[in-house]
Amino acid sequence: MRRRPFIDSHLALAIVTVCGLITLEARGQQSSRLGWLDPYREPASRLIGEAISDHFAWRRLAELTDTFGNRLSGSENLDRAIRWAAAQMKSDGLDNVRTEKVMVPHWIRGDERLEIVEPPRHTLAMLGLGGSVGTSGIEAEPLVVRGFDELDQNAARAKGRIVVYNVPFTAYNETVTYRSGGASRAARHGALAVLVRAVGPAGLRTPHTGALRYEDGLPQIPAAAISSEDADRLQRMQDRGTRVRLRLIMGARMLPDAESANVVGEIRGRELPDEVVVIGGHLDSWDVGAGAADDGGGCVVSWEALRMMKKLNLRPRRTVRVVLFTNEENGGRGGLAYLEKYRGELKNHVMMMESDSGVFRPVGFGFSGPESGRRILGDIATLLRGVGADRIFMGGGGADIGPSVREGNIPALSLNVDGNYFLIHHTPADTVDKIDPNDVARAAAAVAVMTYVIAEMPQRLGIESQ
Amino acid sequence: MRRRPFIDSHLALAIVTVCGLITLEARGQQSSRLGWLDPYREPASRLIGEAISDHFAWRRLAELTDTFGNRLSGSENLDRAIRWAAAQMKSDGLDNVRTEKVMVPHWIRGDERLEIVEPPRHTLAMLGLGGSVGTSGIEAEPLVVRGFDELDQNAARAKGRIVVYNVPFTAYNETVTYRSGGASRAARHGALAVLVRAVGPAGLRTPHTGALRYEDGLPQIPAAAISSEDADRLQRMQDRGTRVRLRLIMGARMLPDAESANVVGEIRGRELPDEVVVIGGHLDSWDVGAGAADDGGGCVVSWEALRMMKKLNLRPRRTVRVVLFTNEENGGRGGLAYLEKYRGELKNHVMMMESDSGVFRPVGFGFSGPESGRRILGDIATLLRGVGADRIFMGGGGADIGPSVREGNIPALSLNVDGNYFLIHHTPADTVDKIDPNDVARAAAAVAVMTYVIAEMPQRLGIESQ
Repeated sequence: MRRRPFIDSHLALAIVTVCGLITLEARGQQSSRLGWLDPYREPASRLIGEAISDHFAWRRLAELTDTFGNRLSGSENLDRAIRWAAAQMKSDGLDNVRTEKVMVPHWIRGDERLEIVEPPRHTLAMLGLGGSVGTSGIEAEPLVVRGFDELDQNAARAKGRIVVYNVPFTAYNETVTYRSGGASRAARHGALAVLVRAVGPAGLRTPHTGALRYEDGLPQIPAAAISSEDADRLQRMQDRGTRVRLRLIMGARMLPDAESANVVGEIRGRELPDEVVVIGGHLDSWDVGAGAADDGGGCVVSWEALRMMKKLNLRPRRTVRVVLFTNEENGGRGGLAYLEKYRGELKNHVMMMESDSGVFRPVGFGFSGPESGRRILGDIATLLRGVGADRIFMGGGGADIGPSVREGNIPALSLNVDGNYFLIHHTPADTVDKIDPNDVARAAAAVAVMTYVIAEMPQRLGIESQ
Repeated sequence: MRRRPFIDSHLALAIVTVCGLITLEARGQQSSRLGWLDPYREPASRLIGEAISDHFAWRRLAELTDTFGNRLSGSENLDRAIRWAAAQMKSDGLDNVRTEKVMVPHWIRGDERLEIVEPPRHTLAMLGLGGSVGTSGIEAEPLVVRGFDELDQNAARAKGRIVVYNVPFTAYNETVTYRSGGASRAARHGALAVLVRAVGPAGLRTPHTGALRYEDGLPQIPAAAISSEDADRLQRMQDRGTRVRLRLIMGARMLPDAESANVVGEIRGRELPDEVVVIGGHLDSWDVGAGAADDGGGCVVSWEALRMMKKLNLRPRRTVRVVLFTNEENGGRGGLAYLEKYRGELKNHVMMMESDSGVFRPVGFGFSGPESGRRILGDIATLLRGVGADRIFMGGGGADIGPSVREGNIPALSLNVDGNYFLIHHTPADTVDKIDPNDVARAAAAVAVMTYVIAEMPQRLGIESQ
């Protein structure tokens, strides 16, 4: 009767001992594998502490968006925001602060109105799409379709109508095809104009603007966004057999290109100043809302990484450069201008990072680049467990850094966040109150730590050297 | 060792038996107390079945709000909705369908715009308040205050300014005082105009319109609603010391009174046709949104009670009358006209019910009247347990039935619901998609059963007779 327990307890002890040894072994392996991070633990904790202990970054974002409002390319608002940002960077003590001239498309919305004329006349919420041509007035019956297939099946009925794309939002990359390509697709069938259901989840009678692209060789017809509510309503009226007439007036037009600029500031590298780590977002926005999530926040958290390094006297081995790009929304000229200006130096670009998904709860970074780089980023991200931003996802980059990244084959990162970005994206509701100051602080901490270590570590990201 | 279980099981049996007897006794008491409801159980279940088995009511609400859109007093939209409703009631087979003429105020919004002129010019979301005077343009600095107290403390600074009431939404009855009385309060101190933070929870840059009331003897100054986002933003700019200039343009004006009408339909009583149970909502709305929650839904669920009684051949002892009132939003003339027309018959008004809190999940009824009536309503409400609308709350009534209820001392009910009414109240987002077809069905069932039993039962509600 006493043997079994005795044997059992010995067995249990043995198991515990073995497990303990395995655990210690694993910790030892991890510890030795992450040992290379030890020199960066203290600066990382200082950067995190600086970011989290204050809401400076949110206040700066509020000042930017409150003061200058929305910032469409070519607008005085953007020009003044650019001058303000450069002045602020100088007062932060950044190195080599400058604005780099970029000629940008200058589209203006003008007055616009969409009415149901019959049944009784009243206006609908709408926003012309960026780049659309205007119209002094188109009055026609709508043809509501649930997608391109249904349009093509009803091609004969599209002629002389206003085509309404009633496609519920699924994923941005899917649904945005109706906004970007819907006008030309309908023009091919003789439509007079198109209305595109908001590319975003259902809001509060909220249309979402954004860029369209006219195909060569087809008539350019006016295009506007309507709310999900009105798209569904026009669908119901059509299904019910109600005869509807719409009237669309849009004062939109394209003016000659205007002068704008990327805003650039640096922390010059301590040992390898010609090797550059570039981080940034875009300062321009659509002409509604305040461009807070898209992309004032991305600008501020990138900029904040440099401000904090400067304040904490952290000058890494390589140069860290923040770029607030212009004209991401309707031309991408800021990113192209950066490529043109720095084409000869791309080989010295160690990494480029863009933050343009809103500044909500940061969860980590997207990465495109060599596998060796992914392993290093995964290691660095362990420093960000406390701020919850320690995951590395497949695929990084951004519209502004894209041209340089592609041409220079540069490792590319993006800040990845978790939030309801597309509810407010390209709408009047993209304002700073939607953004949690603690999320901005955590995002700034994440960008700062990731950037600092990449700029400071002896090995170059993506080059096998360990 | 065997006794205890034996004793225990006897004890348990005894407890079970006693509990069972208590339960049976309670059931017996309840059964006998609710025995008077037995004749109404079968018609109640038929009404509930009719309502719940179909989405007819929601589809009717969608047709009303899709086709006629918003329906401000004096508008062609409202006129046509009135004619449509009367025609539909006739085709439902209701008795004595008629429109009863009401002269109503005719306020129109006109074009309107609020801009920040400096820092750089851009527009803010706004909605003029109903009844406001217009302005061809007022340009002034804002004075942002957090309430009337802060306004009074800064009275000397209000002169020549646009006063901004930045008062976060708490309860409607509290916060609405700034919308209704804020203009005159600021005019007293020499303000040129007022902007009122949206009376509703934070939306998506969503101003809420609604009526204001000018005090006699004070200048009438323009008043508009702004979003919570912009109210907080102007507050931050003031706190930051940023100099702001606003420009307000409003084409609002009051035209001569216009002809409108209450729409009335009935199920004539089988035995006591002169005793009347009145139920209704208001067909007019503000000139934004589609007046779906406020108050197309209240109209439809009230009307639905009669349509279902007719369809099911349920003709109660007393007359049931549905009234779709006009001009609840900006004058209350429909409710006043009802009182004028039926003043001599108020003594035969057994009960009046108004549904004007949106048609969200119904939870029961508010009641104002004698305690004996409350007990009877509580009994009837047990028939509505299955639809979840079985609670009787203190206080019932509504703006339209109010004048008659007060003058005739008539027992008053309201349909009580649980939903985010004030998020969309008086905004462009008050559209039918915010309303669940199942909630509309349940609300129609609740109104129908409550109304039917009150009209059918031998005793008159509120008269001690049991």
